Amino acid sequence: MKKHIFNAGPCKLPRIVLENTSKAILDLEKCGLSIMEVSHRSKEFQAVIDEAMDLFKELLNIPDNYSVLFLGGGASTQFCMIPYNLLNKKAAYINTGAWSTKAIKEAKLFGEVDVIASSEDKGFTYVPKEYNIPADADYLHITSNNTIKGTELKYDIDCNIPLIADMSSDIMSRPVDVSKYDIIYGGCQKNIGPAGVTFVVIKDGILGKVDRAIPTMLNYETHIKKGSMFNTPPCSAIFTVKETLKWIKSLGGVKEMEKRAIEKSDMIYNAIDNSKMFVGTVAKEDRSRMNICFVLKDEYKEKEADFLKFTAERNIVGIKGHRSVGGFRASNYNACEMEDVEALVKAMKDFEVKYA
Amino acid sequence: MKKHIFNAGPCKLPRIVLENTSKAILDLEKCGLSIMEVSHRSKEFQAVIDEAMDLFKELLNIPDNYSVLFLGGGASTQFCMIPYNLLNKKAAYINTGAWSTKAIKEAKLFGEVDVIASSEDKGFTYVPKEYNIPADADYLHITSNNTIKGTELKYDIDCNIPLIADMSSDIMSRPVDVSKYDIIYGGCQKNIGPAGVTFVVIKDGILGKVDRAIPTMLNYETHIKKGSMFNTPPCSAIFTVKETLKWIKSLGGVKEMEKRAIEKSDMIYNAIDNSKMFVGTVAKEDRSRMNICFVLKDEYKEKEADFLKFTAERNIVGIKGHRSVGGFRASNYNACEMEDVEALVKAMKDFEVKYA
Repeated sequence: MKKHIFNAGPCKLPRIVLENTSKAILDLEKCGLSIMEVSHRSKEFQAVIDEAMDLFKELLNIPDNYSVLFLGGGASTQFCMIPYNLLNKKAAYINTGAWSTKAIKEAKLFGEVDVIASSEDKGFTYVPKEYNIPADADYLHITSNNTIKGTELKYDIDCNIPLIADMSSDIMSRPVDVSKYDIIYGGCQKNIGPAGVTFVVIKDGILGKVDRAIPTMLNYETHIKKGSMFNTPPCSAIFTVKETLKWIKSLGGVKEMEKRAIEKSDMIYNAIDNSKMFVGTVAKEDRSRMNICFVLKDEYKEKEADFLKFTAERNIVGIKGHRSVGGFRASNYNACEMEDVEALVKAMKDFEVKYA
Repeated sequence: MKKHIFNAGPCKLPRIVLENTSKAILDLEKCGLSIMEVSHRSKEFQAVIDEAMDLFKELLNIPDNYSVLFLGGGASTQFCMIPYNLLNKKAAYINTGAWSTKAIKEAKLFGEVDVIASSEDKGFTYVPKEYNIPADADYLHITSNNTIKGTELKYDIDCNIPLIADMSSDIMSRPVDVSKYDIIYGGCQKNIGPAGVTFVVIKDGILGKVDRAIPTMLNYETHIKKGSMFNTPPCSAIFTVKETLKWIKSLGGVKEMEKRAIEKSDMIYNAIDNSKMFVGTVAKEDRSRMNICFVLKDEYKEKEADFLKFTAERNIVGIKGHRSVGGFRASNYNACEMEDVEALVKAMKDFEVKYA
């Protein structure tokens, strides 16, 4: 029976993407070689990575003065690459949770870090909106979605200094005004593909302004110059990203993804808000469309394991909350379908009939 | 018609490995989720990475005081991670070609580099054997196989200081005395899997001896402590590595891989040595079993494109030499079959009948 997958990433991917990847593992475009066997210098693979980059640019309406990179090492490697390449004296960070905290930790190795706002005072359950951006900072770094706690900055902020955003969990889930950012980056394993490949959207002319020597693989210039092919890229993962972007385009692009994300997340949040047993954990205006976090009310707390068992019996997978939060988290990325959401909402209601 | 794949990496993989990967992309071990959909924190994926690590240790007979890591970023990222973690004052490097040269370049960012031997004087067509290892160097770095020029150090050298080897192209193609090394690393995309994952075999207790602050993702300690799961690993690529290692084991392990590598490479080298038209480019005792480089003799030089066309018509793929060398290169990794080699050798002989 079909599983309803709410994993936080790696996560559900569109069936057609899995099928096309599965076929390409046996034979890429009838060339007689697997996507894992073709040389990264072959015309076959060049076509794959070119299409992935072109689709990325098209779907996000990226201006011409930006490059799109596909790298290894995960968004976690970007946490140090960003200050390595861009932090001269001081950088500003907004701390909205575990991932921001990790990014801040790395930046501190390279210079002064001004944490201009933080929602740590309330357990990262909201997005700070009051802060002053220091004009003398080299950049402001934000994490647009907090995957663990379930908050999301659902619009592009104005910023008087270069803006850098970790969009690991919300990339391609809404239109973005890319021109407001110097760098947008993230792991692909949520909205646009499998684990093992990291995207970086980077504006021309922002490099070369720090004095330190940068190791070749950590220098964005290396990858921009070589079109992400300085070294052997994660070829097969890039193929799957390309297929996922094709699928997004076929459905109507990021505007349609946003519409669906709103519909699906509203449905779950409505179920939470109308529930006797469940309660949301995040300030309503900052609720993430991607990661919907909720817990049982105090009087029902002991039913947590029961709800996980109840949902598992209905083939609902991946709704256990992050170990640092507890409770439940339903991740509603692009590939999550309305029927998955309906199954979850029905399970919540049925559980309530049984136990409330 | 079946292709005879001699790509230098990414390269031919065993058919059963491709088939099992293709199936796991649709459904991992009948769990109802793709290998690309399961959480890296799930018991399903933990079983995959555990098996891959265990097989790696078993096949190379790795002593208990070593860890095996599976990381992103390619061997090229290791070029800077090694000095970042281990270079205090001075490191010794042997320069056997393009990859060693790149490793040396990165090390120079972190301290003094003593290139104790180099085969650059003869275009990297041999492996230097005369050198003094400085007792005061933090480590000696070698590249055991030169993928581009086709030389190979086919045995484990004695070394009075910590020894580090890039074995990207020859890992699991022969038994290795791992106890002689502090680190063995490489990309998996030649002998043991697809592009997108890097293996690191690292001895306990060798870290923590440099003063510099190391970014979290570049610190081996991070990945050792977390069993390669500090961040989301390249899950699907690790699955394919696991399947490739299973396949190696099923055939008799690295001893059998070595026997086959010798048989197959001998067959091609014999064809070269007995040819009127072709000639090898490397000192005979240093010829690589993995990358067999050869050119047309001067009087036949203009036939290069003809030979590529001649072999392409016989479904022979990937024998064009590296752009920096020209001529031909047949890469003979573990998955390369005797029938592939026979097809190539027959093509060489038939071409000679036609043109010599």
